[in-house]
Amino acid sequence: MAELTDKARTLIDDPNFAYLATVSKDGGPQVTPVWIDRDGDTIRINTAKGRAKDRNMRRDPRVAVSIAATDDPYERVEIRGHVVGTVDEPDARAHIDGLHRKYHDTDDAYPKRAGEERVVFLIEPDRIH
Amino acid sequence: MAELTDKARTLIDDPNFAYLATVSKDGGPQVTPVWIDRDGDTIRINTAKGRAKDRNMRRDPRVAVSIAATDDPYERVEIRGHVVGTVDEPDARAHIDGLHRKYHDTDDAYPKRAGEERVVFLIEPDRIH
Repeated sequence: MAELTDKARTLIDDPNFAYLATVSKDGGPQVTPVWIDRDGDTIRINTAKGRAKDRNMRRDPRVAVSIAATDDPYERVEIRGHVVGTVDEPDARAHIDGLHRKYHDTDDAYPKRAGEERVVFLIEPDRIH
Repeated sequence: MAELTDKARTLIDDPNFAYLATVSKDGGPQVTPVWIDRDGDTIRINTAKGRAKDRNMRRDPRVAVSIAATDDPYERVEIRGHVVGTVDEPDARAHIDGLHRKYHDTDDAYPKRAGEERVVFLIEPDRIH
């Protein structure tokens, strides 16, 4: 496990979108913008069970994450890492509520959708670029 | 080949950053922000020869591209596609100059770096999401 750099920590802690790349079943790439935060140097990404990135990360734990500052896209970092675990509801629900507050500067919880189960992916960085 | 949607065309034509995901030699994902434009429905991405994305796209033509509006990250599109060809210098140099003008609102050419050779990757969309 690599340590996050100070720049990576700042970019993650600010409400910047991250772009998460995963590997599809056919071996091709998939990329999608995500909310992100961290617990120390462990990156946390929250998704709904059954989505492409959920299925991809369960099949192949390797991920790449690119984060740029919203106000300066040239201030950026790329992280390669791998999934080391997942967290289910109710903790995953509390986590998405926290991300919702971070990214929307609100006190509201994240809207609940019928039948949607949230899951947190815990990602350890291997290389920071 | 899929046709780009009107929304995808607008997001590409505006100076929004795209996030390009490719597959590394080891089969893991790589993601990086890029400038982007298009010729009709063919997406064009310009890089320097020898970079990771250059090597990756020559080895495995499958790519994924995510583009969001700078002023509204929830206005976004994801495109899966594949490389159908490349364009070398001098046309690739003219292309990066055009992208530099698009993204920096300048009349200047893109700065030349000693020994750097540019290359355009031509990408046909397969699926738009």
